[in-house]
Amino acid sequence: MLRKEVLIKEKTEQAVNILKEAGVDCWITFTRESEICGDPTLVFLAPSHVTWHSAFIISSDGRKKAIVGLYDKRAIEDSGAYDSVDSYVTGIKEPFEHYMKELQPRTIAINYSKTSEISDGLTHGLYLVLYELLQEIGFENRLVSAEKIISALRQRKSPSELQAIKAAITETENIFQLVKKFIAPGKTEKQIADFMLNEVRQRHLATAWGESTCPAVFTGPETAQAHYFPTDRQVKPGHLLNMDFGIKVDGYCSDLQRTFYIMEKGEKGAPPEVKKGFETITKTIEEARKAMKPGVKGLVIDELARRIVTEAGYEEFPHALGHQVGRFAHDGTALLGPAWEKYADKPFQPLEPGMVFTLEPRLTVPGRGVATIEDMVLVTETGAEFLDHPQTELMLIK
Amino acid sequence: MLRKEVLIKEKTEQAVNILKEAGVDCWITFTRESEICGDPTLVFLAPSHVTWHSAFIISSDGRKKAIVGLYDKRAIEDSGAYDSVDSYVTGIKEPFEHYMKELQPRTIAINYSKTSEISDGLTHGLYLVLYELLQEIGFENRLVSAEKIISALRQRKSPSELQAIKAAITETENIFQLVKKFIAPGKTEKQIADFMLNEVRQRHLATAWGESTCPAVFTGPETAQAHYFPTDRQVKPGHLLNMDFGIKVDGYCSDLQRTFYIMEKGEKGAPPEVKKGFETITKTIEEARKAMKPGVKGLVIDELARRIVTEAGYEEFPHALGHQVGRFAHDGTALLGPAWEKYADKPFQPLEPGMVFTLEPRLTVPGRGVATIEDMVLVTETGAEFLDHPQTELMLIK
Repeated sequence: MLRKEVLIKEKTEQAVNILKEAGVDCWITFTRESEICGDPTLVFLAPSHVTWHSAFIISSDGRKKAIVGLYDKRAIEDSGAYDSVDSYVTGIKEPFEHYMKELQPRTIAINYSKTSEISDGLTHGLYLVLYELLQEIGFENRLVSAEKIISALRQRKSPSELQAIKAAITETENIFQLVKKFIAPGKTEKQIADFMLNEVRQRHLATAWGESTCPAVFTGPETAQAHYFPTDRQVKPGHLLNMDFGIKVDGYCSDLQRTFYIMEKGEKGAPPEVKKGFETITKTIEEARKAMKPGVKGLVIDELARRIVTEAGYEEFPHALGHQVGRFAHDGTALLGPAWEKYADKPFQPLEPGMVFTLEPRLTVPGRGVATIEDMVLVTETGAEFLDHPQTELMLIK
Repeated sequence: MLRKEVLIKEKTEQAVNILKEAGVDCWITFTRESEICGDPTLVFLAPSHVTWHSAFIISSDGRKKAIVGLYDKRAIEDSGAYDSVDSYVTGIKEPFEHYMKELQPRTIAINYSKTSEISDGLTHGLYLVLYELLQEIGFENRLVSAEKIISALRQRKSPSELQAIKAAITETENIFQLVKKFIAPGKTEKQIADFMLNEVRQRHLATAWGESTCPAVFTGPETAQAHYFPTDRQVKPGHLLNMDFGIKVDGYCSDLQRTFYIMEKGEKGAPPEVKKGFETITKTIEEARKAMKPGVKGLVIDELARRIVTEAGYEEFPHALGHQVGRFAHDGTALLGPAWEKYADKPFQPLEPGMVFTLEPRLTVPGRGVATIEDMVLVTETGAEFLDHPQTELMLIK
């Protein structure tokens, strides 16, 4: 089990090195009532939520300081990650300005980004509060975005983070094996989803995203326009069924998709057009994985995958080939995606060792449904390796 | 059970009226990947999380529009709350700017606030994105804070919201009754907390805030400096024990505190100094409740309560007398608090019918521990009434 204290020490140490690498003097995570509208970075810095204005200040010279409301002090101190924890009763202004004047940083990174949501945890109102505090001591022009720092911190997975992700994958694969025996003609998408959720609960685990769409279960051809919630639509012979499912273990997620074919009477396997669709997907994933290595941009991998699908005669998938996975099913900044407006700079970020990505091409087999697989890979020093047991055979249901 | 669709219809309708009242033409909730860093207002506008840039646009003329990524469209449409839902694949810019030009609002409220965290759901990076979109069509100077709109929306509890809060209170009170029989000398704070968490799980409910501090259990005199997590400290005769605990039902919270006295051998009740401390708390709560009514500022109630405690010879409590409760244990903008820096404008907001507040004075009885009660009250047209069964007697443990 991943202990919070271990993670916080690991990550605050890593942050010091990233600050040095980026040439940034100090990084402030500034938050309040984090249970209401929390900064997604806080979990690497504190063992629990904070109530009042709180500043977690890490410097490239190795100093680590937290300034929090009185009742949050002890929990932050107990984490053992900070050199000192200051607390206050009436307001953060005095201790915060005092420490910043002592620190005299030339650059101050704060948690906002136009394009990377995991780096965009500072709310606009709190930004204004922080700006005014720094203005009072003449530091307001030293602010820069912490996007590169937070992205590196999240994407360079530590051994304990990878262990939690692998555990989440194993649980997910186990439930896929069980549900394979449950799926049968006549069963509804909802029944299948309920069966899986029940398995999650029996294991005292949580789903990787909201239960209303985890698992997402889609059966048959009319699901080409994906509807997120499982419906009362029944499983029918001759149709494809696919599901998107993930589990969270010790705060880390899996995110996997699998495709099943429901055989018609007398069939011994899937018909040729279904096979072709499925094999196009497995080929796309394998070619994409082989092309991944540090330094390559996500855009290039997405393009390669997209071309295999369209050259096989299918419409291109209306989403990115793959995203990073970590504390959220959708995590990190770098993306294996096309240069679309909504993806902003993400597809242009180079891959780095320690990143965990999904590979999830999708295509429609007319009259049958959607063929799609989502596997998970880890970027290594020289390439990329599967973290799950990739689906290589269509799962056939009688 | 509170259905999401009912809540969303109730709240989007209420929003139209609040916009009219405030003289604001339109209100935009702008968010993305809401599971990662979500706007706390989204839950009133959408039945589930959204993935891509999404705009929920409500106008004072009654028009309700949502613009979301393709895969989120169906779920938002199904809520039945919007006149129309537009979707996109590559980016929100075109449909968003098109609709805003059609709408021609003179004022555009967006979700940021320096002082109210529940109104501060727009991240700084997304603020910059939205600002640039509006700048392209010349609307960037029409932006105002939606603090007053969101505060009114959250604090004017609808009948279905009140019903959920009352259900949460009942569950909490039931568990307090059970744990009263469990508490005994020698039991540790952790054991008591585990007993209560087990009751929560057996009921398939969730705690109102993070389980590591819900319940918070404090026993004995060395807890005067509150430590948030339950420890291995044992319950001892002659000590006060108090706990802070809440349950979430259908997305709505309770937040209650109760105080117990552990009798020494031969005692038939609490000693005089413990009684005096406890009675000071019950008197403070009752006087505060009687003074509450629409129009009165929270500051006034806090001052009155603080004075009763200090005039009885105790130190003043280092926190506000009470906060609002709703979807979070700490909810709403208006606060029954002192004029401290960290509370900003909140204590100066007048009370309104439909607000739900806690009343939670606290004091230390030297050598015994902390006496504190947290009850919950509803502001009505003419005053305030208890929602829980207020603790009027010290719970005595043999």
